[in-house]
Amino acid sequence: MISDKILLDHGSGGKLSNKLVSELILQTFNNPILAQLDDGAMISIANQRLAFSTDSYTVDPLFFPGGNIGELAVNGTVNDLAMCGAMAKYLSVGLIIEEGFPISDLKLILQSMANAAAAAGVQIVTGDTKVVPRGAADKLFINTSGVGAIPEGIHISGKNARAGDKIILSGTIADHGMTILTQREGLQFDSPLRSDSAPLNRLVAAMLEASQEIHALRDPTRGGVGTSLNEIAGQSNSGILLFEDTIPVRDEVRGACELLGLDPLYVANEGKLLACVGAGDAERVLQRMKAEKYGTDACIIGEVTAENPRKVFMRTSIGGTRVVDMLTGEQLPRIC
Amino acid sequence: MISDKILLDHGSGGKLSNKLVSELILQTFNNPILAQLDDGAMISIANQRLAFSTDSYTVDPLFFPGGNIGELAVNGTVNDLAMCGAMAKYLSVGLIIEEGFPISDLKLILQSMANAAAAAGVQIVTGDTKVVPRGAADKLFINTSGVGAIPEGIHISGKNARAGDKIILSGTIADHGMTILTQREGLQFDSPLRSDSAPLNRLVAAMLEASQEIHALRDPTRGGVGTSLNEIAGQSNSGILLFEDTIPVRDEVRGACELLGLDPLYVANEGKLLACVGAGDAERVLQRMKAEKYGTDACIIGEVTAENPRKVFMRTSIGGTRVVDMLTGEQLPRIC
Repeated sequence: MISDKILLDHGSGGKLSNKLVSELILQTFNNPILAQLDDGAMISIANQRLAFSTDSYTVDPLFFPGGNIGELAVNGTVNDLAMCGAMAKYLSVGLIIEEGFPISDLKLILQSMANAAAAAGVQIVTGDTKVVPRGAADKLFINTSGVGAIPEGIHISGKNARAGDKIILSGTIADHGMTILTQREGLQFDSPLRSDSAPLNRLVAAMLEASQEIHALRDPTRGGVGTSLNEIAGQSNSGILLFEDTIPVRDEVRGACELLGLDPLYVANEGKLLACVGAGDAERVLQRMKAEKYGTDACIIGEVTAENPRKVFMRTSIGGTRVVDMLTGEQLPRIC
Repeated sequence: MISDKILLDHGSGGKLSNKLVSELILQTFNNPILAQLDDGAMISIANQRLAFSTDSYTVDPLFFPGGNIGELAVNGTVNDLAMCGAMAKYLSVGLIIEEGFPISDLKLILQSMANAAAAAGVQIVTGDTKVVPRGAADKLFINTSGVGAIPEGIHISGKNARAGDKIILSGTIADHGMTILTQREGLQFDSPLRSDSAPLNRLVAAMLEASQEIHALRDPTRGGVGTSLNEIAGQSNSGILLFEDTIPVRDEVRGACELLGLDPLYVANEGKLLACVGAGDAERVLQRMKAEKYGTDACIIGEVTAENPRKVFMRTSIGGTRVVDMLTGEQLPRIC
């Protein structure tokens, strides 16, 4: 589909986002660091390797079961840095606030950010506040950026995934996206859905302690597990094979997905990670993850293959095999 | 004035912004780095001192004489880092785009960002793109964050200004703010107004080469020269005395200010800096600035005093003295 206007789908995290980034943004800002397309940039200042990342949050509603936009914004950037193998140390916060926004809500959100920063062990050290007239923005948008050191010997990137690696998923999928969507649709369930928003830096630190064979890490936010694995397959020029039965989805989340006709593989997560780990170390890493707060439901869901480069396949429950493409079409606008 | 809602004035860069930052944000994110309140944070990773800064841009209109939102966003963060004595090296870009925004405009803006980055010698290494439904944001908002190394021996902060320092201004004031405002009001002038958006990192590098007595630097954006000098007076617990006759304002900018009833001292600049420099070095620094592209109109506009701590006074053209307070009231929403 050719369009001369930005569509919601350009922000989905899926195929059209990918096209916008690769055809317009990468070409315009042409440089090899940006072109790596990992969750954060790996940069070097005075011989110190650093990870540097940014994310803007436009989630609607601002408050949801399991968190709010502020906590999400802190955890999101902490996680993007963790996916580079870096421990986040310092964050910036940029607020764009609509005139008339209740100061009491702002206080709650800022306090959540402070709590999330303390929980993740990072400091919010610089910021900016803009106020726009009523109607020029919807309530509140938050940008967080972050920097952290990458320890020596750590080289993690989507491009480093290699045939034979096991793919570990740190827990259940689709919790965040389905929570936001059911809130917006006003749906009620017996077991209420809850966002999985969480900081993953300590989980990653534990994994790195357990093994030197962690090749790639990604947190499957917008676009979900399906899209993140397609990105890794593309970056590493490898194939990926998933086993449907092994992918954990909570019953209530699966029920909500069925009701709304959504595939949990493409729904956003905000406290989960995917890791490509050398087969020999996979079991050790998995056990180490299960001992961590945000890794208790970790499991191996597939493997990296030499066959089918740049493609993701899934062995289904009934024994068939299907292609898992990138997300096409905007499934859920303003999910994060 | 007590309010339980965010007002436009909370984003003015003036008194109410200051109150929001000091009473709510600083208290919530309580840490000594943020509490410095310079243009960027000075942080330390693995014994390397770094400057880290963020700014969101919501300027309306997006395109204006002398620049556009993209160029402004790159120069703004380059300048915030320069005001910490750091050479910006890496930038992040966060885009929030309204559904339906013309891709041709996005291309122009991204190309301006790439050009501005090249001109300032920085790389855009990481980014994020969100698209929100029509009406949830006004066209396009851009966040830029940046990091750069602070050279050894450089210790620049508003708190370091000291009695006897000369205050140097790098050129004419109020060009950017009056350009945006007259565009919005549809005013026409014989000599068209033009934003001063420019990268100041090379100017700062030249100044630092010329002297080790540069104590404070600030770029007087939102809130203008009047507000920035009040911030320095507050941080350093010093007084500041200005000489009205020495402050350069272009005729056409002065005319526009008179027409609209605005004081140029409070109007935003996007390519100017204020420096507090030890008196013995001031003339040398001034001459070095005049040799630089963005410092040709540099001049000494006042001095730091032991009297009247935390206050800014101005000796007027007709020989009187008046207090220059922080900006109160939102003069110009969405100026940057």
